[in-house]
Amino acid sequence: MQLIGTLKPTVMLLLCALSLAVQSAAMDSATLDKAAQLRDQALTSDQAYKLLESLTTEVGPRLAGSDKELEAIEWAKTKFREMGFDKVWTEPVKVKQWQRLSESAAVIAPFTQPLQISTLGHSVSTPPGGATGEIAHFATLEALEKASPGEVKDKIVFISNRMHRHKTGSGYGPAVRARGEGASIAGAMGAKALLIRSIGTDSHRLPHTGVLRYDEDKPKIAAAALSNPDADLLERMLERGNPVSLTVNIQTRDKGEVEVANVIGEIQGRTKPDEVVLLGAHLDSWDLGTGAVDDGAGVALTMAAANLIQDSLKQRPYRTIRVVLFAAEEVGLVGAKAYAAAHQDDMDKHIIGAESDFGAGPVWALSAKVGAQALPVIDSMAQLMGALGVVRSDSIASGGPDVGQMVKLGMPAVDLMQDGTDYFDLHHTADDTLDKVDPKALQQNLAAWTVFAYLAAQWPGSFR
Amino acid sequence: MQLIGTLKPTVMLLLCALSLAVQSAAMDSATLDKAAQLRDQALTSDQAYKLLESLTTEVGPRLAGSDKELEAIEWAKTKFREMGFDKVWTEPVKVKQWQRLSESAAVIAPFTQPLQISTLGHSVSTPPGGATGEIAHFATLEALEKASPGEVKDKIVFISNRMHRHKTGSGYGPAVRARGEGASIAGAMGAKALLIRSIGTDSHRLPHTGVLRYDEDKPKIAAAALSNPDADLLERMLERGNPVSLTVNIQTRDKGEVEVANVIGEIQGRTKPDEVVLLGAHLDSWDLGTGAVDDGAGVALTMAAANLIQDSLKQRPYRTIRVVLFAAEEVGLVGAKAYAAAHQDDMDKHIIGAESDFGAGPVWALSAKVGAQALPVIDSMAQLMGALGVVRSDSIASGGPDVGQMVKLGMPAVDLMQDGTDYFDLHHTADDTLDKVDPKALQQNLAAWTVFAYLAAQWPGSFR
Repeated sequence: MQLIGTLKPTVMLLLCALSLAVQSAAMDSATLDKAAQLRDQALTSDQAYKLLESLTTEVGPRLAGSDKELEAIEWAKTKFREMGFDKVWTEPVKVKQWQRLSESAAVIAPFTQPLQISTLGHSVSTPPGGATGEIAHFATLEALEKASPGEVKDKIVFISNRMHRHKTGSGYGPAVRARGEGASIAGAMGAKALLIRSIGTDSHRLPHTGVLRYDEDKPKIAAAALSNPDADLLERMLERGNPVSLTVNIQTRDKGEVEVANVIGEIQGRTKPDEVVLLGAHLDSWDLGTGAVDDGAGVALTMAAANLIQDSLKQRPYRTIRVVLFAAEEVGLVGAKAYAAAHQDDMDKHIIGAESDFGAGPVWALSAKVGAQALPVIDSMAQLMGALGVVRSDSIASGGPDVGQMVKLGMPAVDLMQDGTDYFDLHHTADDTLDKVDPKALQQNLAAWTVFAYLAAQWPGSFR
Repeated sequence: MQLIGTLKPTVMLLLCALSLAVQSAAMDSATLDKAAQLRDQALTSDQAYKLLESLTTEVGPRLAGSDKELEAIEWAKTKFREMGFDKVWTEPVKVKQWQRLSESAAVIAPFTQPLQISTLGHSVSTPPGGATGEIAHFATLEALEKASPGEVKDKIVFISNRMHRHKTGSGYGPAVRARGEGASIAGAMGAKALLIRSIGTDSHRLPHTGVLRYDEDKPKIAAAALSNPDADLLERMLERGNPVSLTVNIQTRDKGEVEVANVIGEIQGRTKPDEVVLLGAHLDSWDLGTGAVDDGAGVALTMAAANLIQDSLKQRPYRTIRVVLFAAEEVGLVGAKAYAAAHQDDMDKHIIGAESDFGAGPVWALSAKVGAQALPVIDSMAQLMGALGVVRSDSIASGGPDVGQMVKLGMPAVDLMQDGTDYFDLHHTADDTLDKVDPKALQQNLAAWTVFAYLAAQWPGSFR
């Protein structure tokens, strides 16, 4: 009271105006009640888990460009149809068909020990018998960039930077440069091959793969990630001060370009069928695990959220809810870029979007990138998600890697921010399997997604 | 007081006599003070960790009968000598030289997925192109034993029994029969190959190997363990009710018998050099990891305990402290049996023994198998270990797998019981690496071992 008493009359008027705006933008109570019902229903639904169980059991690994990605596309079309989605279709995506053939590494001096490695995605091969050489060790990619070519030429470069664990996954960005750019930087300096410490937070003998990017004008060398315990071992050997030599044999195949597809399923809007609320996830995975957390969980959640709204309501929501399962995310957001290119002319009909691609940890915060007039709706979403332990975050939503391609073209977005504390223990490893997913956390996610999708499809205003 | 008042005179006399016996059996306070000093010194010693770091970094995997086991034997001799042990020698042990060459498995129908397997130790090979067949699934070895041969013939048997987690490792015994005996039982019924769920408590894609035993009069078939997530996957496929087919390709080599050795280092007793306190551990490991918890920790602890007593005292204890690093434990206690055979005539000079072969978890209880007259000394040990969180257990000590061979011949023993809650997450996997060892827990172990070894060597009485 005292605070208001000290405010100037103009400020008070402004507050009143804002308050009215909030009321007019806010959802009607019947819609909010329905959203709360959907949320509570999601908390007892096993549909997302069943979809994830099916995808990981019946398809499993689905490397971009592989026959298994094609198999996953068929799986998704079938599931969309079985669930009774109003419209199901695919949109073509061209992607490089790269294959891991074999990989091995061993320390050969001054001690002898085998090492666990995983070839990085899109890596070339070493010579057929492998590459042998002394290690040139750098603590970071930046240290390699500052080295003289003499320190690196004819050596096997080892970059040992460690990824730090954080709920938001904020350790990933700084660490992952070594994976993306290391091979071209080391290759330009005459290295024979590149080994990096896995970009991951676990301590298991399961290396983390992930795509690399070659500069086309630089020599291409083979590259792999060591498991974190193997990287520790190499560091201990190097600490003894004597040269350490390795042999690395990586064989891969590039079978050229192949056509895969984004798979799309829609619940069509009752009154505004051309206005789209986009729920995104990616259908491809790495080849080592079964893609349960990356991104089977996202696939299952987005499909199940749309389906729950469809099955639980007597009428469709006003707007269309479109689930897009992107192709070939892991090798450069290929499907999302194809979608953005194909839909740039109807991007204004993409009312808002969100992506689930951070595992199956619970949602703990909701952030948005929307116009000021839509903020009360976001607040309503957050309030409904409060019962799930979700808070309203004031960070700006990115839309995620895939849906972010559409955000670049002006589409509003929310981020359903998940607890990713353990995500990078599993990410891109053989350990990305169904047993790592907590069914309860999946239900909590489903509840949050259902609230978002339903309110976004039911609120008549613009999020821009 | 009331209790004593009601006792008969004869009982009171007996109590007096016992009390005198306790006093004469108990340690003198100078010895107890010295033991407490040694214990506290151990808590700040990094020697066990340094030894373990050296063994896992400079030698690594040391499969029984391999060149790496020979390398480990050289490592141990060198370390004993560098630490100034009074006597260092080896005793020959003959062992089969078995080698893992390659292993792969995949589901081929009704779905297609690769599986992570590890060949069981001493397994024969499948035919060169592998074995292909439908799964015959049994929940337990007992269920397989009850099956009719028609259910098994020409199939690939899958036994899915789960090991349960317990601090004492009590889940191991019931589960491990499938690994030891499964191949001969399935082979006798005409199976093509055996796959078992890993005998382990983790959920990583790192299968647990371990030795199998063939009945010489039954057909030998190849056998491997699936990682636990892979076993889950197969079970989910089987739950769908349709036949599931696999291909399994296991290639191994048996290179015949080879000579390895037990490595022995002694701190010789000052007054009773022929009386031996035996500290045991095994030097061999499986080939997948670096043998940090199984049993590098035991090797490091027993060596460091004897060395700490030697380095910290002006005089040697009365009795000899003998560290025996057994060969080829993993493939049937081969080194321990050889030691027992070689030393059966001087077993009466083996005053007491103990073994460290349960990882690097903290010691939480002390049990003994000694004569009644020696119980007060065990109680003194337990009292001194109380400061380390150790309690006196009333269970009967076994001496462990290796030292137990000497207990069978009448040698008294104690068990320094460790918390093995996580031990079977790592046991016999590629994940058995140095990073899994907590240096603090290693120091706590060292302190307990030092108390035991010193008091056993310093107390003049018999433990029999």
